[in-house]
Amino acid sequence: MAKSRAEETEMLQSTTLSTRVVPIAYEKPAKNPIFFPALLIGLQAVFIILLGLHAEYGHEPIGNHITLPKHSVISFPNGTHVRIHDEAETPHRGIADFYSMFQDIHIMIFIGFGFLMTFLRKYGFSAVGYNFLVAAFVLEWALIVRGYMFDYEPATKSFPIDIERIIVADFVAAAILISFGAVLGKTNPTQLIVMAFIEVLLQSANEYIGLKRFCAFDIGESMFVHVFGAYFGLAVAFMLYDKELTSVEAEQREKSVYHSDLFAMVGTIFLFCFWPSFNAGVAAAGDSRLRAVVNTYISIASSVLLTYICSCLFSKEKKFDMVHIQNATLAGGVAVGTVADKIIRPFGAMIIGSVAGALSTIGFRFIKSTLQKFKVHDTCGVNNLHGMPGLLAGIFGIMLAFLPAYSLYNENIIPVCWHSTERSHLMQVGYQAAALGTTLVIAITGGIITGLILRLPLFNDERPSSYYNDHTHWETPDDFHDAHSTALISSETERHV
Amino acid sequence: MAKSRAEETEMLQSTTLSTRVVPIAYEKPAKNPIFFPALLIGLQAVFIILLGLHAEYGHEPIGNHITLPKHSVISFPNGTHVRIHDEAETPHRGIADFYSMFQDIHIMIFIGFGFLMTFLRKYGFSAVGYNFLVAAFVLEWALIVRGYMFDYEPATKSFPIDIERIIVADFVAAAILISFGAVLGKTNPTQLIVMAFIEVLLQSANEYIGLKRFCAFDIGESMFVHVFGAYFGLAVAFMLYDKELTSVEAEQREKSVYHSDLFAMVGTIFLFCFWPSFNAGVAAAGDSRLRAVVNTYISIASSVLLTYICSCLFSKEKKFDMVHIQNATLAGGVAVGTVADKIIRPFGAMIIGSVAGALSTIGFRFIKSTLQKFKVHDTCGVNNLHGMPGLLAGIFGIMLAFLPAYSLYNENIIPVCWHSTERSHLMQVGYQAAALGTTLVIAITGGIITGLILRLPLFNDERPSSYYNDHTHWETPDDFHDAHSTALISSETERHV
Amino acid sequence: MAKSRAEETEMLQSTTLSTRVVPIAYEKPAKNPIFFPALLIGLQAVFIILLGLHAEYGHEPIGNHITLPKHSVISFPNGTHVRIHDEAETPHRGIADFYSMFQDIHIMIFIGFGFLMTFLRKYGFSAVGYNFLVAAFVLEWALIVRGYMFDYEPATKSFPIDIERIIVADFVAAAILISFGAVLGKTNPTQLIVMAFIEVLLQSANEYIGLKRFCAFDIGESMFVHVFGAYFGLAVAFMLYDKELTSVEAEQREKSVYHSDLFAMVGTIFLFCFWPSFNAGVAAAGDSRLRAVVNTYISIASSVLLTYICSCLFSKEKKFDMVHIQNATLAGGVAVGTVADKIIRPFGAMIIGSVAGALSTIGFRFIKSTLQKFKVHDTCGVNNLHGMPGLLAGIFGIMLAFLPAYSLYNENIIPVCWHSTERSHLMQVGYQAAALGTTLVIAITGGIITGLILRLPLFNDERPSSYYNDHTHWETPDDFHDAHSTALISSETERHV
Repeated sequence: MAKSRAEETEMLQSTTLSTRVVPIAYEKPAKNPIFFPALLIGLQAVFIILLGLHAEYGHEPIGNHITLPKHSVISFPNGTHVRIHDEAETPHRGIADFYSMFQDIHIMIFIGFGFLMTFLRKYGFSAVGYNFLVAAFVLEWALIVRGYMFDYEPATKSFPIDIERIIVADFVAAAILISFGAVLGKTNPTQLIVMAFIEVLLQSANEYIGLKRFCAFDIGESMFVHVFGAYFGLAVAFMLYDKELTSVEAEQREKSVYHSDLFAMVGTIFLFCFWPSFNAGVAAAGDSRLRAVVNTYISIASSVLLTYICSCLFSKEKKFDMVHIQNATLAGGVAVGTVADKIIRPFGAMIIGSVAGALSTIGFRFIKSTLQKFKVHDTCGVNNLHGMPGLLAGIFGIMLAFLPAYSLYNENIIPVCWHSTERSHLMQVGYQAAALGTTLVIAITGGIITGLILRLPLFNDERPSSYYNDHTHWETPDDFHDAHSTALISSETERHV
Repeated sequence: MAKSRAEETEMLQSTTLSTRVVPIAYEKPAKNPIFFPALLIGLQAVFIILLGLHAEYGHEPIGNHITLPKHSVISFPNGTHVRIHDEAETPHRGIADFYSMFQDIHIMIFIGFGFLMTFLRKYGFSAVGYNFLVAAFVLEWALIVRGYMFDYEPATKSFPIDIERIIVADFVAAAILISFGAVLGKTNPTQLIVMAFIEVLLQSANEYIGLKRFCAFDIGESMFVHVFGAYFGLAVAFMLYDKELTSVEAEQREKSVYHSDLFAMVGTIFLFCFWPSFNAGVAAAGDSRLRAVVNTYISIASSVLLTYICSCLFSKEKKFDMVHIQNATLAGGVAVGTVADKIIRPFGAMIIGSVAGALSTIGFRFIKSTLQKFKVHDTCGVNNLHGMPGLLAGIFGIMLAFLPAYSLYNENIIPVCWHSTERSHLMQVGYQAAALGTTLVIAITGGIITGLILRLPLFNDERPSSYYNDHTHWETPDDFHDAHSTALISSETERHV
Repeated sequence: MAKSRAEETEMLQSTTLSTRVVPIAYEKPAKNPIFFPALLIGLQAVFIILLGLHAEYGHEPIGNHITLPKHSVISFPNGTHVRIHDEAETPHRGIADFYSMFQDIHIMIFIGFGFLMTFLRKYGFSAVGYNFLVAAFVLEWALIVRGYMFDYEPATKSFPIDIERIIVADFVAAAILISFGAVLGKTNPTQLIVMAFIEVLLQSANEYIGLKRFCAFDIGESMFVHVFGAYFGLAVAFMLYDKELTSVEAEQREKSVYHSDLFAMVGTIFLFCFWPSFNAGVAAAGDSRLRAVVNTYISIASSVLLTYICSCLFSKEKKFDMVHIQNATLAGGVAVGTVADKIIRPFGAMIIGSVAGALSTIGFRFIKSTLQKFKVHDTCGVNNLHGMPGLLAGIFGIMLAFLPAYSLYNENIIPVCWHSTERSHLMQVGYQAAALGTTLVIAITGGIITGLILRLPLFNDERPSSYYNDHTHWETPDDFHDAHSTALISSETERHV
């Protein structure tokens, strides 16, 4: 911006020449180009066999298929009354109850996550394309893993697939795509499939422990999906760290261009709009579900405002930063997830969203670069959008468990759990903390081990020059090396000249 | 297009140089850069306190939560029978009834309006970003204002928030975003927040008068949202008019580029698809809601056709104009709004949509430039898409009130209104006209006063050189000054050379 | 990529000059520029009259408007039980049952098909714009044609329009838009409207024969929409074939640019996500609908995986091809359509999707160019995405009819058909085959005749230089001839130099 006229003219000329002259050393094809399709074909065949052996259709509810559960009413000292949903009597629920929210969540997974990651100037094909590949793979694999782990009935030797199960498969996909965000641009498709294969197993196991053994509440999956996905992904990113990531070339390719930022906003806004469906998707019909919608609606709107406030406030020139708007605006949806169906009241939702939006923007502005010093390079900033707000959510969950009148988890109405013993609300506090701690331990340990596996020469054929570069694995159109690279190449030229 | 070879070569060279050489004088940061975040933080704190004092959750209906209202059947002279919905017995309705349409409307607000405005070549970040900011702000503020104005119960000292209330907050956001369209590119974020703050109050007050005092019908909010939003915004634009808007620089930046037009089409098509949900969103369950869906579906499809017809017909070269296709195609949704749930019959919906599409295209082709002579500069053409079609809707409402058998507003089945006296259909005609007139008066007066406030030096730090320019308030990527500005700068160069 | 420095420098210079110097001969306006608007106005007037004469609103169901049909239970030899839906007792269904899926399908038609076709670098306005025009036209015309053909009641001299009918109008639009994909870029808007006018009549007639006379099952309309649309469009493309299509200019314009490929992915992903709604949209409530959702979800996920596998496997450099990812990934939705609500079990759905994804990718890689040798130029590759997977779907339907326990079409529970005689499952096999055969015959014959009509000088004013070129019929922004054409013009320049 501040160069002299002569410098600029010279730079322009050399740029014009070097655009054509300096050959960019693109990556050769992978060492074993057949490995990726062979691995996928093999897995697909195994999935077909497993589905053939044990998967059956679930059933739609008979009769009136929307019926409300019975309620009991609790009176609070301040005079308000709350109807309590008795989960033991929840009727089986079907398409009429779930379908609309299912499709919202489905769009979040494929459009939301997919386009959110297209901000990289030369990695748009990979961002939306690998998101598509990984999510489709996880849908299949999660149906199977969750089927065996949660729903297998020894009597019929089968597990059912119904509308609730396909929503849950989408939730699992969200966790894996969050991890994908941490390693975006630094992994090849084979590594992504291997990571997804392992992570589905660990994420499901962790959720089984948290939900079925600890009986922790986490209706919006902020712990089981967001915290797990973020710290698993960051642990993988730590293991795959390469100092070439801080090279000028890589950092240039890690930037956006004007229209790639607009594509990313498509993802952001769909995630924003449909987040109430994510948090209320499997909530109990009735007031629980209404609260999950209302709380998320208010919380995520508040995080939008605090993101604009903090983005402006912490900027030198008092300008907004697209990275914040694309990401931190959504932190309110994450942070309210664990307690979304509880009685946090509208102002509580607004406080949670505000704290989350501010924290997330601070994360993008200050914490992300600090993490990188510790060799954790977080491409999409998942620590800021999913990690820290998810931890907040877990902490809010622990805090709310102290208040059984609001968390609805007191001794009488504790949901039927595997042990079926009564539980005090202080015990619930402990179990909430245990669920959060277990999630962190399994995510980080699992991520480190997965990262070690991904570094095996069998999988790891990426070279730093291929980071954030679609050309390595995609056929690219003519303009890939022209129009879009102007800014990139001119800065490269400066060094060459 | 018709330049000689020599001229073009020369122009190209000077362009190439001047791209780098002539420094574009971008705006300095706002005078008081802390004012915007401080204002927003203050408002956010007030909102939290108000919600804390008086906002409670609403409740989901108990028992079977989808039940149809009772109907009575009216026979018409021509032998057809119509079931009449008795509003007094409408059961309380919940998520199962509203959620799917709520999400459609939510997408219209954030994706539809947001991307519709990205057509400006250098203002895409602001278009979608400020839309996001303003809409999120309005959701919070509208929940509170509407809560106190429509729903406050002195007994419990609270107002409820349920699924119907969050839909209504989205409707209010639509009105403010329509006004935003009129002043797009000519206002800073502080001005937008101040405008939104005032407009929510006035829009809600006007709707309270029209709905609760006049008992006018306007199921798709064509008067209360579209007419109000458009003429409020145009009045603000009139007050903020600056002759620099007609400078060559500003007019160049007011144009689109190829891909910005495609982004705008994302907005257009989502608005088109989901408009039936907007008009039927809060319609009474049963045949009223079915008519609202069917009438809107037919009307908006007709306005698409008439837009293509008129865009071609009124063009010198008989070509289609993207501005028309992006906007006028939707006029059928606005124009049918007031009477969408009435018995206008499918051919009536088709006539309404056709008239609206033609009128709106004529507005974009001829009326927009005329308005500008009167110092009303309408960036997005909201007069053509929302203003005039909204007036049409109001007039169709008045006409239909003359026909009580079709409007369903005769003496027996008049909805229970505040006065609870009987009302002849001719009185209803008068009240419909009064609602339309009041809307215009409050919108224009309010807009003028708001415009005066926005011109206060406290808020108004914009300079014409920052019009339609993301760089003033956003951190922009490297290519912002390069690829996208080619056409712009070459035309500037012509003048410099 | 492999050019010497000198060559490249020279090429760059000549490009820079020729960008401005060589005037591109754009098409003159159509011979009779009034013909297109006049034709559309005339048709719009006719539609208004027909709707006025005979269209009435349908009705929402009275009472509890979601009720499940009765079921009977069938036991299979392997011990599983299946509840059978008795279609004769299906209650009338309304908005609560249909609306959410209707809107998904609506988005598929306008966003999905529209943006999928924006991949062409200089034809984005036309792709999304004509899609919008043609789809809106078809909605109107299909409501009328289907009304007279399927629903006309002589007693009331009217046909009803309700939520199910507007879904069906969207299905008809899908067929016409598939044909549009085959002729994309080679037809003017007048030709598209004429084609749509004829095709709606033929598609509806064919579906009437297949559904009402043959009583074939095809819940996802794979035969009646996908096969019909694809082969009708290919027959039209064959009749309009022009050897200029293989010219260097045309082939250059037929390519994508980086961001046009990303816009196309918006279309792809919405189609992917909402395909379960397409296949289950009009399925009988209850287990049939659940199966339609689950089978489509699994099948289309499998076709994503096989597309990535085959795209990589059949590529020389083992890279992914965006054309495959944009299209073949969806083939699983088509191929499972005919049997989506039958008991094919999850592993069956996975096999169907896998076969379809592989076949479709093979089609794009190998068969598309072969077809072109036979003068069938298929712009979007509809043979690969809709034609061949649709034929697969028809064949799977025939196969399943052999297994009445799984197809649910045995002698006792055959749906009430026009003849109301009993039918063996072998007869059903024959009728399924007859429906597929009839579809092919009517589509191809109708397409050839329509192509002949479109070649009449009255309609055909396109010149090959206008192929894939928005400029012919659209006002284009400044950068249309600049930034986007760089790659195109440089390759043209090579030939000129």
